Amino acid sequence: MAGQIDARLASLGLSLPEPAKPVANYVPFVVSGDLVVISGQVPVLHGNVAFQGKLGAAVDVPDGVRAARLAFLNLLAQLRAACEGDLDRVMQVIRLGGFIACVPEFTQHAAVMNGASDLAVEVFGEAGRHARTTVGVPSLPLDCAVEVDGMFRIA
Amino acid sequence: MAGQIDARLASLGLSLPEPAKPVANYVPFVVSGDLVVISGQVPVLHGNVAFQGKLGAAVDVPDGVRAARLAFLNLLAQLRAACEGDLDRVMQVIRLGGFIACVPEFTQHAAVMNGASDLAVEVFGEAGRHARTTVGVPSLPLDCAVEVDGMFRIA
Amino acid sequence: MAGQIDARLASLGLSLPEPAKPVANYVPFVVSGDLVVISGQVPVLHGNVAFQGKLGAAVDVPDGVRAARLAFLNLLAQLRAACEGDLDRVMQVIRLGGFIACVPEFTQHAAVMNGASDLAVEVFGEAGRHARTTVGVPSLPLDCAVEVDGMFRIA
Repeated sequence: MAGQIDARLASLGLSLPEPAKPVANYVPFVVSGDLVVISGQVPVLHGNVAFQGKLGAAVDVPDGVRAARLAFLNLLAQLRAACEGDLDRVMQVIRLGGFIACVPEFTQHAAVMNGASDLAVEVFGEAGRHARTTVGVPSLPLDCAVEVDGMFRIA
Repeated sequence: MAGQIDARLASLGLSLPEPAKPVANYVPFVVSGDLVVISGQVPVLHGNVAFQGKLGAAVDVPDGVRAARLAFLNLLAQLRAACEGDLDRVMQVIRLGGFIACVPEFTQHAAVMNGASDLAVEVFGEAGRHARTTVGVPSLPLDCAVEVDGMFRIA
Repeated sequence: MAGQIDARLASLGLSLPEPAKPVANYVPFVVSGDLVVISGQVPVLHGNVAFQGKLGAAVDVPDGVRAARLAFLNLLAQLRAACEGDLDRVMQVIRLGGFIACVPEFTQHAAVMNGASDLAVEVFGEAGRHARTTVGVPSLPLDCAVEVDGMFRIA
């Protein structure tokens, strides 16, 4: 049955953003064999960065979680484009990389990144369980609070 | 002959930690074809973080080296689980990513990360020689001093 | 026709540096099937780091762009070695990772990393368009301003 993941997204009340257009000389994703490698995505909504600043300073953990969730939603939008619109072709979320803009004293990176990880499993179930690396960074492009990239296997 | 890598570990006086259990909605590793992708591992011993703080401040380079070595030991524990207990199936350490928590003035990241790289070659010989990316970060989950992730090819 | 990419490099007035020799127990690249994974490269010229310091402090954006371009040139030198001298075997630049040493207030990481991305497309055309993740870091090995790693598909 086609559209199972689309139905899951709808049941979660989620609609995917328009995948951001390529800027400069990189592209949002590359498909190589059965691997999809997606560029770092930031928490953009309707074309604007929704969460700017650093964890441990202007951004608190609940907003960091929302930022990670929104970054993953943008990742999903790119993944759907990579699958030519059919998210049911996604076999496995292999790996997510989480970069959390934060002050040097911040230690709750894992809690923030769960915003992305939890959504991956809500959407894909067991196939959404992934390897993950989460680290702090002093700053991100456009002062984004969170950036998430990913590698996926598709049919 | 089975158990060659286990014998090497024993001859090095090393025993692997219990692989850390999955927390939240990510998993310690994903196997995709002949690739194993392992989540970022930290210097945990007997369930506790053994090296916290930053290089260039509370943590000196020799302790950073120990932290990287211990993080790689945790990576090995996950890799053994990914190989269903048989580390002789490891064909190649493809890549290690090293994240060194440090102050902005720190420049000896490579020396620290050698703690992981040297152990990879002690354990796997030529198959342990890997591509590597090492960078500084302002902070890591749980205030860990070092985090190491990895990609491996298995038979 | 062999040597097309070499001819392109020549027409761009570019000559590749000597690929840096392996140091310690890691290697500049690993070939696994049709994938080439290359270690993080820094802006080295004639054996010396050409751009040290941080964006937003001692290094301005134009110099950051030059640093990213030079790091990619070093990546190309390693890639040519991985292809046994024949860059025409490169099928796709899959992914570049960009690490920009910067102060916490810096936000123009993308502009800096374009130094690498633009050169990828100048050299490889459409096959040079890649997925990319760019983040800030507080410091890099040897006080380098920029570090770039990469994954490539070769024939």
